[in-house]
Amino acid sequence: MNRSVKTVLLTGFEPFGGDSDNPSWQAVQALHGHQIAGHRVVTRLLPVAFSKSLRALRAALNDSSPAVVICVGQAGGRAQISLERVAINVDDARIPDNAGKQPVDVPVIDNGPAAYFSTLPIKNQLLALREAGIPAEISQSAGTYVCNHVFYGLMHTLRNKKLRAGFIHIPYSPAQASLHPGAASMSIEQVSQALRICVRVALDQRQDQAIAAGAEC
Amino acid sequence: MNRSVKTVLLTGFEPFGGDSDNPSWQAVQALHGHQIAGHRVVTRLLPVAFSKSLRALRAALNDSSPAVVICVGQAGGRAQISLERVAINVDDARIPDNAGKQPVDVPVIDNGPAAYFSTLPIKNQLLALREAGIPAEISQSAGTYVCNHVFYGLMHTLRNKKLRAGFIHIPYSPAQASLHPGAASMSIEQVSQALRICVRVALDQRQDQAIAAGAEC
Amino acid sequence: MNRSVKTVLLTGFEPFGGDSDNPSWQAVQALHGHQIAGHRVVTRLLPVAFSKSLRALRAALNDSSPAVVICVGQAGGRAQISLERVAINVDDARIPDNAGKQPVDVPVIDNGPAAYFSTLPIKNQLLALREAGIPAEISQSAGTYVCNHVFYGLMHTLRNKKLRAGFIHIPYSPAQASLHPGAASMSIEQVSQALRICVRVALDQRQDQAIAAGAEC
Amino acid sequence: MNRSVKTVLLTGFEPFGGDSDNPSWQAVQALHGHQIAGHRVVTRLLPVAFSKSLRALRAALNDSSPAVVICVGQAGGRAQISLERVAINVDDARIPDNAGKQPVDVPVIDNGPAAYFSTLPIKNQLLALREAGIPAEISQSAGTYVCNHVFYGLMHTLRNKKLRAGFIHIPYSPAQASLHPGAASMSIEQVSQALRICVRVALDQRQDQAIAAGAEC
Repeated sequence: MNRSVKTVLLTGFEPFGGDSDNPSWQAVQALHGHQIAGHRVVTRLLPVAFSKSLRALRAALNDSSPAVVICVGQAGGRAQISLERVAINVDDARIPDNAGKQPVDVPVIDNGPAAYFSTLPIKNQLLALREAGIPAEISQSAGTYVCNHVFYGLMHTLRNKKLRAGFIHIPYSPAQASLHPGAASMSIEQVSQALRICVRVALDQRQDQAIAAGAEC
Repeated sequence: MNRSVKTVLLTGFEPFGGDSDNPSWQAVQALHGHQIAGHRVVTRLLPVAFSKSLRALRAALNDSSPAVVICVGQAGGRAQISLERVAINVDDARIPDNAGKQPVDVPVIDNGPAAYFSTLPIKNQLLALREAGIPAEISQSAGTYVCNHVFYGLMHTLRNKKLRAGFIHIPYSPAQASLHPGAASMSIEQVSQALRICVRVALDQRQDQAIAAGAEC
Repeated sequence: MNRSVKTVLLTGFEPFGGDSDNPSWQAVQALHGHQIAGHRVVTRLLPVAFSKSLRALRAALNDSSPAVVICVGQAGGRAQISLERVAINVDDARIPDNAGKQPVDVPVIDNGPAAYFSTLPIKNQLLALREAGIPAEISQSAGTYVCNHVFYGLMHTLRNKKLRAGFIHIPYSPAQASLHPGAASMSIEQVSQALRICVRVALDQRQDQAIAAGAEC
Repeated sequence: MNRSVKTVLLTGFEPFGGDSDNPSWQAVQALHGHQIAGHRVVTRLLPVAFSKSLRALRAALNDSSPAVVICVGQAGGRAQISLERVAINVDDARIPDNAGKQPVDVPVIDNGPAAYFSTLPIKNQLLALREAGIPAEISQSAGTYVCNHVFYGLMHTLRNKKLRAGFIHIPYSPAQASLHPGAASMSIEQVSQALRICVRVALDQRQDQAIAAGAEC
């Protein structure tokens, strides 16, 4: 890879839990090779497996030396783009991963800190998404499954680096939601558009604004 | 209007409740003039006002002599296309309509029957939408506001006619949901596509299939 | 039974769907023999079976000649006492009943009207429950399973009688909800108290007040 | 206070957000002076104010030298007892606190770690609550308002101590939910019973079991 070209790394996941597609990968893949604010988008598919996912992520980081990293995962049941604020140092899987492993109450990284905050400007991203008419919210929990595992592993790997990195959860695609009565969805096109906006805002070096987007309790 | 051309009537509503757009009209309007199974789509905007809405609807029915009628309204908070099964003879408004009227516990039509069932093939429509990957469900209640009022008035007006008619509720548009934290949405394009499918299935004269889509209690 | 004693009939259901208890019966049974406003509470257990439930209900009506009838059923997933407004003439079962029958899109009563409204003063009951600090709401749909079937059959049987009758849905009990992650519940004691209030209000001959409790769409 | 008597500290909050009661305090107060497994329950009311809440908590810790500390707060909208897993180092208030302060995106403790995990045996507590028929769940987020602030401040204060401490969120009381259409609730009595069970399990020195109670994404 030509190291002189500045890049942004986006990752998505392979399908899991019986689904045949994963919109996180569909939406990410659609941006592969695109130029955003002078940076080329590099995309990478991650396995839904606790052990292999971080190895694949670290390889992708080494290969692309990105200026910004956004890992994307699916959170079936959520209705809006979820900008994750924090990754916690615990795996607690309700179902086995695609490799058959189901860790319960074990740390992502032994002796790692309890949590890492996203270094993405999530409030600026929230504002930009809403201005573009895309439903979005701040989330205080990325869960305790492979998504949080990857998010924590990402922030731990980059803990001494300056680049902005974090995690975004997305709703079911319409095709998935058509199999889940009552479930919310978002079109792949809109998710891709949202990710493009989030990358652009992350590349802008302005400081994150403090706008209230928390909870009432 | 050329009465020799067979038509389908689709109606949408004007904005209400402080919103500046109503996706029911945006999605309906996008189909205006389209041909579906040899029928031309005629569209009409209805006011969100108890008294005026039915006058506008009856005028539209007289003008277009449609083979199929589908009235479309927005149900903010729902996540999927809602195929309404039944209209009930009651107005019970939690907020005033756009004309400032707030009827509570009064009938839509004095001495009318308690309810009318949709004459659309809602189960065939449900199957066709799901096959197209569009999230959809059967709903047992169109509420007690202007949507149910129009639905009941529609079925009462057509009670001695043979044409298929009914009501479909749609989610917030993404732009609306971006103003309502956590709310589900569906793109205008997908709603239009869903309506096109529902019209096509309604024009097909096959009998509605009995597939389980009800509740567990 | 001594016909000179004025009675009120409350019915509950046997367990279904794999649960070992049904709080509708637990809450109703706790009121058996109680006096409310000069009336004695008579209770009856109904089977969760489309065909047998109405026979059992009609036998109970003949036996007790009640002044007020309230049938009670469980709606797992709802969080508050649901005062049902309307019963519709359709069975559409997502799961088989306890007799193994799963009717889909067939009428409760052939050639019956599309719906019957509850003749209980549901708005007065709503006010009284809220004054007592008990969470309650008006519901526009009793579903399309055995609950709606019994509700419709009740109103059809009494269509030429003057007595007040209707249906109330209740949440899971805490014990049930402890098996359903995230599900809402209400204590059996509070449900019994709510039913006692609803009986008292129904026996009061004042007309139902028109207070807004409907939907916004 | 007699330091030779072993104690447990439970805290609740004063009302906020326009409510006249706070069930967290009602449920805690009901246990004041009770004996649980040889320990006396000491209770303390905390203000819903970012700055004053931690001073009050630290004073309570100094006064009672407890063996176990459980802070309790209300999370209107949740349906079950929420055993909180993690406190994060951020205040992000959507509404002002009772002192009129609304911190946004500032740390609870400057230069504190990103998060602390609860040291309560939350999985053992979950099992014990479910065995008692009380609806309960593990929560991955205590929000970003005064509850999380107190939880984080508690764990930071005790970071070098051995005692078990943590935070539990509870639903609306029925009286509160009667003012919020559709909202879930739990009786004060059941919340008190749940807290008693949680204290007993926390005093039992057995290690927390690893049972899956996390998320699927």
